[in-house]
Amino acid sequence: MNLISSKSNPKIKETKKLFNSSKDRSKNGLFVIEGLRLCFDAFCSGVKIKTAFLTEKSYNKFQNAKDVANCADEFYIVTEDVLKHISDTVSPQGIVCVCENICNEFVDKDKLKAVVLCDVADPSNLGTISRTAEAFAVDLLIVSGGCDIYNPKALRASMGALFRLPILEIKQDGLFEFLNEHNIKIYATVVKNSQYKINEVSFDEKSAIIIGNEANGIPSEVVEQSDYTVTIPMNGRAESFNAAAAASISIYEMVRESL
Amino acid sequence: MNLISSKSNPKIKETKKLFNSSKDRSKNGLFVIEGLRLCFDAFCSGVKIKTAFLTEKSYNKFQNAKDVANCADEFYIVTEDVLKHISDTVSPQGIVCVCENICNEFVDKDKLKAVVLCDVADPSNLGTISRTAEAFAVDLLIVSGGCDIYNPKALRASMGALFRLPILEIKQDGLFEFLNEHNIKIYATVVKNSQYKINEVSFDEKSAIIIGNEANGIPSEVVEQSDYTVTIPMNGRAESFNAAAAASISIYEMVRESL
Repeated sequence: MNLISSKSNPKIKETKKLFNSSKDRSKNGLFVIEGLRLCFDAFCSGVKIKTAFLTEKSYNKFQNAKDVANCADEFYIVTEDVLKHISDTVSPQGIVCVCENICNEFVDKDKLKAVVLCDVADPSNLGTISRTAEAFAVDLLIVSGGCDIYNPKALRASMGALFRLPILEIKQDGLFEFLNEHNIKIYATVVKNSQYKINEVSFDEKSAIIIGNEANGIPSEVVEQSDYTVTIPMNGRAESFNAAAAASISIYEMVRESL
Repeated sequence: MNLISSKSNPKIKETKKLFNSSKDRSKNGLFVIEGLRLCFDAFCSGVKIKTAFLTEKSYNKFQNAKDVANCADEFYIVTEDVLKHISDTVSPQGIVCVCENICNEFVDKDKLKAVVLCDVADPSNLGTISRTAEAFAVDLLIVSGGCDIYNPKALRASMGALFRLPILEIKQDGLFEFLNEHNIKIYATVVKNSQYKINEVSFDEKSAIIIGNEANGIPSEVVEQSDYTVTIPMNGRAESFNAAAAASISIYEMVRESL
């Protein structure tokens, strides 16, 4: 068991960089999570934990923390100060883990529901939408454009759903090639001028619903290549929904018949 | 036009207290909003604006800010520093308004949809749920227990919906008396052991859906007095939804037939 008490320890500097920078995470294929609940959830979900940092108190007090530490490739005991330095929150269950990017296999099936996130920017929205997708047993989460699913806030808001969902990261060019190749019908959610109200759509057995950016929606070239455009009808006077609320309603409607 | 350049000005001290303390807001029947968009939205929605604080720059640059200032009972030009002191965010469209509590009349009708918030604690959830309620033309928002609808974050997340919805603040004791008196059927949303799946419910013409606390749900004595219990079925493995996501789906289902 190794002790780290300095913030300038290379391992700590590296972890802080990963925590803060999406570019760094992407380059290394690694991400960082914190808190006993989320770290233990990652462990139970089969996420590969490369390094675990724990305070002595959490190592001694929580069996779950000990389990996570012992399954990691390496683990370090760190001072409260150092732990605080590499995390967002102060928690008595101090633990931070560096993990390898998630890799849950996608299995093609005759009946299949997918969610495509296209430039969803807010990490909390990303997390909330993933949580809804998992609750409704969505088979595949496709991530396209500027969605940073390894953002610590997104992972936290997903309540671990991002650890367990089959995820495909794909460039916009490859999106339709993939969906067409797998005979998946594509429903683009738009705010207005859609072909269908979402509550009147009978979704195909293999369906993907596309959720766009909070401010700008789905890029027009993506909308154009979709099979259908759908809207959540509003009978009130609000201009729009919160993005995660709209996405949750849309995913619900896609799976509603099967519930 | 009066200039305030000191943070210890009594008007500023009073406003900061209102901004930070729900007890203070409640005692005075006042609340505080900030930012040009939200303040102008309040003005357009007929909210009574008691005092407006603006930076000189926003007063001179934005006609909307000037309109808000001129309709307020009184307005003050303040320095950037003072404005920052009484708000959460730094914005080039610096404006903060003290408003009188919202008072939109509830009109009873033969067909009526209501949403009851019971101890919803997170201000962002409160705001998001209200935004969904407005988008779906909900006729009445009932607020019971510890819901702080005048929290600045809640008002912001509601995108002004809280300015426009008829809102009834009511103690738990009076809730059922009110609903029964108006012949409104009551549907309590619960996570498990419900009588009905929400997608199989045919909602009454006069319906109220109850949304509970993020961690603890609806108090058991409220569930017991409700006419029905309903659940959003999950076919996936997540334990639960994000509270605002679940509420949005539930409200959507209540109005779905009419969309």
